[in-house]
Amino acid sequence: MAKARKPKPLFERACFIGIGLIGSSVARAMRRAGLAATYVACDKNPKHVKAALKLGVADEATGNYAKAVAGADLIVLATPVGTNGEIARVIAPHLKKGAIVTDVGSVKRMVIDAVAPHIPKDVHFVPAHPIAGTEHSGPEAGFAELFENRWSIVTPPKRTSAKAVAKVAELWRKMGAKVDTMDPDHHDMVLAITSHLPHLIAYTIVGTATDLSGDLKQEVIKYSASGFRDFTRIAASDPIMWRDVFLNNREAVLEILQRFTEDLTAMQRAIRKGDGATLEDHFTRTRAIRRSIIDAKQA
Amino acid sequence: MAKARKPKPLFERACFIGIGLIGSSVARAMRRAGLAATYVACDKNPKHVKAALKLGVADEATGNYAKAVAGADLIVLATPVGTNGEIARVIAPHLKKGAIVTDVGSVKRMVIDAVAPHIPKDVHFVPAHPIAGTEHSGPEAGFAELFENRWSIVTPPKRTSAKAVAKVAELWRKMGAKVDTMDPDHHDMVLAITSHLPHLIAYTIVGTATDLSGDLKQEVIKYSASGFRDFTRIAASDPIMWRDVFLNNREAVLEILQRFTEDLTAMQRAIRKGDGATLEDHFTRTRAIRRSIIDAKQA
Repeated sequence: MAKARKPKPLFERACFIGIGLIGSSVARAMRRAGLAATYVACDKNPKHVKAALKLGVADEATGNYAKAVAGADLIVLATPVGTNGEIARVIAPHLKKGAIVTDVGSVKRMVIDAVAPHIPKDVHFVPAHPIAGTEHSGPEAGFAELFENRWSIVTPPKRTSAKAVAKVAELWRKMGAKVDTMDPDHHDMVLAITSHLPHLIAYTIVGTATDLSGDLKQEVIKYSASGFRDFTRIAASDPIMWRDVFLNNREAVLEILQRFTEDLTAMQRAIRKGDGATLEDHFTRTRAIRRSIIDAKQA
Repeated sequence: MAKARKPKPLFERACFIGIGLIGSSVARAMRRAGLAATYVACDKNPKHVKAALKLGVADEATGNYAKAVAGADLIVLATPVGTNGEIARVIAPHLKKGAIVTDVGSVKRMVIDAVAPHIPKDVHFVPAHPIAGTEHSGPEAGFAELFENRWSIVTPPKRTSAKAVAKVAELWRKMGAKVDTMDPDHHDMVLAITSHLPHLIAYTIVGTATDLSGDLKQEVIKYSASGFRDFTRIAASDPIMWRDVFLNNREAVLEILQRFTEDLTAMQRAIRKGDGATLEDHFTRTRAIRRSIIDAKQA
């Protein structure tokens, strides 16, 4: 009897360095779409190695970087961005000729500067950043649908192979994402505004509440539905990942934080002076952006 | 044939001053639970008066305060808190003996100071604040389920009739809310932290983004799902309502804003210095509050 020929997957052997929320979600989304023949998980946390196998996220799992990348034609760096340079240095001698190394980091300039110098000439480095995530962490938290209808931004350095860039874009599209290409520095400024500053502020206000006396803190928890709750969700995100984001996108974050602080001081002055017109004008202007987000189907 | 006797409703004639999101939601929730025989809407916006009738939120509707409150045994003030004092002055001579006046304002001390002096001795003033809302405004935005499983905080001034307080508590419970009693000043401090500061910060950061150049602003909208989006929802809330909240809870808001600003400066310093340990420690501590909110079933 004739058998339907299975289409050749996009990659033969896909290796994930870091199999937490994002790494395991990419593995699941790739598996669902049949994008690789074999999945290899590598994590320095032995619990994650075990979980990756138990959950069926990977076919093979190890704590050894060199063994993990051997023979892989796709390597996905999915660890906190501060670790990427050192990992690149360790895996470099073991990378297969023609392999594609990509990442999922929230910061692009520093990752490129740290990783690119280690990558051999016959290997392609195509940095990427899927704009997706949850406040949960670890391999158990991942799911295949995480990237559906979300943006993934590819930020290739100059002289990156167009074919490799196209293949990474295809990878993201086949996982359900929409793909954009952006200059790495520009990416870092856009994300400083849309993601890094909101997280910093959420972490700060939740910290301010954490420092309250016991009784008041209990009441803040009890009545959190009035606005505060939304900030606690953001501020429950992975601490190591976010520490590395702020350390590695320092200039853009400090620049936008400076603007925010000036604006907050203006609001504070309006409240202190009882300047209702300034408050009302400001609160009316901010409604327009919400409308634009709804119109852009991002709400 | 014998007829089942309909139970007597909690109120004969309920009057809503302001029939926007909250006023119309209270009317709908009361109607659903059969808590009044007749519903009267009063709004200075003629469109709201028309809408209240068209939507079936009220049986009678008017723009005239004196006519609206005549004969009512429940009067719900549901306008921006800055208007409550003047409204109390206008309606006072027309209030029925034994009537209960309540409100739904997000600030309690200033509302009590503004309203209570006008209330006749034979009328009861029982201030309340349901911790519920959406970013939408107007009578069309209201819905009967808004208060289900949400807290409503009653903040009676000293010497308020215990019977009137119990009746307002019963009103909220029958609309599906959980009821707490609190000192007005304490309420204002708790809400400054859980609601007013989060809104101020959300309004500020969305304002900072609004001031960006055109291209960058478009990208912020496009990639808003990375954290920013949550702030835009909060910052789309009613401008007049929030202007009045900040003008009327000035001291508590400025106090908690001061603490927040100090904490943000410490975060800024840690980023500038590359102090990863401080960032990680802070981001780890804030996770605990999220856990408490989930445990308190407020997530």
